[in-house]
Amino acid sequence: MASTKQINIAIIVFPGAGGVGKCFLSQLEQLTYRRPTPKLVLIYICTSKKALYSTDYLAVKLNDVSSALASSSLAPLPIPKLVEFLNASGSKTVLVDNTSSQDVADAYPLFLSNGISIVTPNKKAFSGSYKLWQDIFSAASKSGAKVYHESSVGAGLPVISTLKDLVDTGDEVTKIEGVFSGTMSFLFNSFAPTSGTGGKWSAEVKKAKELGYTEPDPRDDLNGLDVARKLTILARLAGLEVESPTSFPVQSLIPKELESAASGDEFLEKLPAFDEQMEETKAAAEKEGKVVRFVGSIDVATKQVKVGLEKFDRSHPIAALKGSDNIISFYTKRYGSNPLIIQGAGAGGDVTAMGVTGDLLKVLSQIA
Amino acid sequence: MASTKQINIAIIVFPGAGGVGKCFLSQLEQLTYRRPTPKLVLIYICTSKKALYSTDYLAVKLNDVSSALASSSLAPLPIPKLVEFLNASGSKTVLVDNTSSQDVADAYPLFLSNGISIVTPNKKAFSGSYKLWQDIFSAASKSGAKVYHESSVGAGLPVISTLKDLVDTGDEVTKIEGVFSGTMSFLFNSFAPTSGTGGKWSAEVKKAKELGYTEPDPRDDLNGLDVARKLTILARLAGLEVESPTSFPVQSLIPKELESAASGDEFLEKLPAFDEQMEETKAAAEKEGKVVRFVGSIDVATKQVKVGLEKFDRSHPIAALKGSDNIISFYTKRYGSNPLIIQGAGAGGDVTAMGVTGDLLKVLSQIA
Repeated sequence: MASTKQINIAIIVFPGAGGVGKCFLSQLEQLTYRRPTPKLVLIYICTSKKALYSTDYLAVKLNDVSSALASSSLAPLPIPKLVEFLNASGSKTVLVDNTSSQDVADAYPLFLSNGISIVTPNKKAFSGSYKLWQDIFSAASKSGAKVYHESSVGAGLPVISTLKDLVDTGDEVTKIEGVFSGTMSFLFNSFAPTSGTGGKWSAEVKKAKELGYTEPDPRDDLNGLDVARKLTILARLAGLEVESPTSFPVQSLIPKELESAASGDEFLEKLPAFDEQMEETKAAAEKEGKVVRFVGSIDVATKQVKVGLEKFDRSHPIAALKGSDNIISFYTKRYGSNPLIIQGAGAGGDVTAMGVTGDLLKVLSQIA
Repeated sequence: MASTKQINIAIIVFPGAGGVGKCFLSQLEQLTYRRPTPKLVLIYICTSKKALYSTDYLAVKLNDVSSALASSSLAPLPIPKLVEFLNASGSKTVLVDNTSSQDVADAYPLFLSNGISIVTPNKKAFSGSYKLWQDIFSAASKSGAKVYHESSVGAGLPVISTLKDLVDTGDEVTKIEGVFSGTMSFLFNSFAPTSGTGGKWSAEVKKAKELGYTEPDPRDDLNGLDVARKLTILARLAGLEVESPTSFPVQSLIPKELESAASGDEFLEKLPAFDEQMEETKAAAEKEGKVVRFVGSIDVATKQVKVGLEKFDRSHPIAALKGSDNIISFYTKRYGSNPLIIQGAGAGGDVTAMGVTGDLLKVLSQIA
């Protein structure tokens, strides 16, 4: 049964998406050395502006792809043309979507119904409308094509695979709780540490931005939408029909007055005027001997999903988190009062790419 | 590509192996309801003394198998005959080994080379001689049959799958450290809690036995061999050629004088006379503001594997463990200074069976 088949790979990558594109190419290159079968052949790669493709194989080495792409004169194929191109390639194909594009996500049902498998860290496909979610999995189910998205929550941490295993083996997930954002983790571990006093809120946000822990405009982290998207994905996997990431309570940490600030820089400049509110929240928690953290939780029985600030005992695993680590606790019938916990870096190019590469290996084991 | 194939299931189960046999049958029954394809057909089940088999399917419902087995007049097939029987069944077969038998483990290469896939919580196959380890994986590689053993370390916790993903995607695992025994976890969380004083060592051992947390003879936990077997498995997956679970330092918590005690009961009776030694160990740790824990560690670079007592800061995740939970930390190049951590119940029938059922689903996704 050992197979020597060829599997074609197509990659869509938008530069800037957390460096995942470059890291994935590097991991793919190593993979082709370590695992000669099945033979992986890159036949298409594009950014939002440029493309390289050939139905045989790209005549560039994987570690030269970035520069070859930069100097290419080809434009990306429109998605229907890309599907045609991949279908004509004569081998089974895996599409690697290393973007955070809603347009690419919207085309997943089309790719999948054409038998093209997908691996991706793109949250948009699985946290958009519930209809898109249904269309994706029904297309995959009909065609037999696979779709994996481990890195859409917690980067390379085994969060989605673990939840799927719990559900698929018949356990009853009662609650999921955790810190799902590396940015929020870093901010609150510094702002309200379990020992010591921590800095002013606006100063911590500024520091986090300087260290590259936030989006270019920190409001894109502070609005809570990134965490809401991840919660939407997990809630759906746990069996809840969550309509969208805006269909449940999400606490934004952007002061109302700064929502309309013209830029991230203007926002950061004006943020110190609002430090008092966060200081009060911190002090209220301290009075109870607790610390404040930005968490998401899913109560499966009551179907309640929420994202926002909560207080935790200093000895609680969520309070004791370090750096920009994520922590995800699964409370289930089988695991009883002590949850199954996954903890570690939940952001970064290398660990995000690792989730994608791991997914690719899972797909290969099934289609090759 | 959606398949309607039939997959045959054969189960070997020795009663008393942590209740995993019954729990697995119950999970398998639920699975056949939830997932009609591929059709799973039980064609063979045996204990060490009795068997039920039919090349078509067993004419008993899955939840009646235990009682039907008890009243069966058939003896188990000798392993070569079992292989013949399974080969003649006409469909692909998965053998579920829910024993902790070395004899069954020794036959894995024979099953695998005949194309029979294996899922099992049995540690013996993967922690015995290095030659058996090599024979198992080379047989699987040649025939294409699959072999999965998630529950051999940490029960249903995603320990082995996570380590495999790290290695397969090209990460460099530098160190693995943790509490790998539910019994040892319970004993030390009670004996040397992070707050309060804890009981006498012999009293805690007695209590653990009464609560069913130890083997019938607690020395089978206290000798450290169970942890050594798990470390052997993880070290091999991380690339170290560990010859056997006795080829590295393993600290036994059985006083030399009690190694020859005639029974577990005699051992427990005489243990209080040796409490002082453990009290000293506890006090030495307390002087440094630490607590003592029974841990295993693998230093991949120096190829050092060891099992025994170590001291940890009270705020360390290993010190803060609760109940009989396991914790496993993977230090890797990609994850940097903060490890990837998996934590939760690492023993118990239901969660152990869950690991086996999860493995079965992975095998089915590849062979059906």
